[in-house]
Amino acid sequence: MSRNFHLQTVVFAGSGNVAGHLAKAFRQEGLRILQVCSSDIRHARELAAKVDAEAINTCSAMYTQADLYLLTVQDEKIASVAEQMPQVGGVVCHTSGITAMETLDRFEHYGVFYPFQTFSKNREMDISQVPFCLEASSETVFDALRELTQKLSKFVYILDLEQRMKLHLAAVLVNNFTNHLYAEADEFLKENGLGMGMLLPLIRETVAKIEKLPATEAQTGPARRGDRSTIAKHLEMLENMDDLKEIYQIFSQQILKKYHE
Amino acid sequence: MSRNFHLQTVVFAGSGNVAGHLAKAFRQEGLRILQVCSSDIRHARELAAKVDAEAINTCSAMYTQADLYLLTVQDEKIASVAEQMPQVGGVVCHTSGITAMETLDRFEHYGVFYPFQTFSKNREMDISQVPFCLEASSETVFDALRELTQKLSKFVYILDLEQRMKLHLAAVLVNNFTNHLYAEADEFLKENGLGMGMLLPLIRETVAKIEKLPATEAQTGPARRGDRSTIAKHLEMLENMDDLKEIYQIFSQQILKKYHE
Repeated sequence: MSRNFHLQTVVFAGSGNVAGHLAKAFRQEGLRILQVCSSDIRHARELAAKVDAEAINTCSAMYTQADLYLLTVQDEKIASVAEQMPQVGGVVCHTSGITAMETLDRFEHYGVFYPFQTFSKNREMDISQVPFCLEASSETVFDALRELTQKLSKFVYILDLEQRMKLHLAAVLVNNFTNHLYAEADEFLKENGLGMGMLLPLIRETVAKIEKLPATEAQTGPARRGDRSTIAKHLEMLENMDDLKEIYQIFSQQILKKYHE
Repeated sequence: MSRNFHLQTVVFAGSGNVAGHLAKAFRQEGLRILQVCSSDIRHARELAAKVDAEAINTCSAMYTQADLYLLTVQDEKIASVAEQMPQVGGVVCHTSGITAMETLDRFEHYGVFYPFQTFSKNREMDISQVPFCLEASSETVFDALRELTQKLSKFVYILDLEQRMKLHLAAVLVNNFTNHLYAEADEFLKENGLGMGMLLPLIRETVAKIEKLPATEAQTGPARRGDRSTIAKHLEMLENMDDLKEIYQIFSQQILKKYHE
């Protein structure tokens, strides 16, 4: 049976940062948020109040007539939320980079609606700059998700689970691991009476450069130059900082190998 | 003998990216560039032509009456350039993060003028956002350098060699090593038919976050959550990528240890 979806009403499972940012963006595009469900009812109420929705704390209490059900819960809870939901005729999607679409296959229409961005509670987010990765159980579901997504963002991609997982892994590198480097640098400077603020112009420029140049061409620094005497001095300075020393050694070795062998 | 310096005329040793950006900024503040010296005369001429200066290819040919001599050559060449220069009465500075000011102590007036930024040939640079780290052989030299620097930039710091070296080390972390992560992510995505462009919004947001939050608070991701099943999946996906796998293991271990022990 073919059916054309027009996604106008939404139920959220989960009331965290992803739900908060998406609910707000949906409303700006004229969609209505019917319910926000969270096992912590206070948490559900907090978001529900902002988007004129009903707060519920059990999935079985979801309306069955919404157009879109968005499961923004933690990856490992998606299956159990799907299990507890009533049988619904609308489109059921999760927002996870590492979960198979088929986790939702007890529903007739389902898909993946994965916003590829890091969301923080108190930061404004320009949703039009967020890449969305879609997957759908059928052509009609896909068309409906694409129609909705194109209202929100300039960047819509069609990715299967394998590609989505690879993108997610790359995100861990450029977001989580980069941030760990920032944290280590911050700590190192603080211990030496200097401040992270001094690094910000350099950090901004590092990012501005790779918007224009392939990262391998933008590579600079002692290891890139093959400057082993500076590397040795730096390692000496890190004598009592095991984690940082380990990172310094491995990155320097990898960069030396990549550009000098 | 006390003497007040007013730095109006400049001779550059070195004609690379640092010299190019500084010479341009000096001229905008009304200083005159007298000479550009590089062992490769074509290189010297290229910059000299842009800033109305004379090109020379030997340090002994430097004018002796300039107010400021700026040694922007590679760290390991600073000593030998200083050795070959005529005895001059102006202020002689190098621009290195890891070289002692005393390398220049054969001159009467000397110092360090270290712009803490990564300079690229074909990128415009807003010098007013570049932090400058100064050190000087005397109060008068220091006052002259500070007067000049404050014309160029909002951010002027007074750092001795030890602090400068620590700042330089931190720069390697947040610039060179971050860029290596970008390069590895780029390569990983390319091998899987995906593009670095998809990562840019996330990279921008990662940086925007640490402008507002301490990096340890901004930390997210599988290791931060203690999500060992995602970490295991990712390591499996990196089966044949030794460098990336090594990085992934070490960062995940360090983040797990830092936030979960």
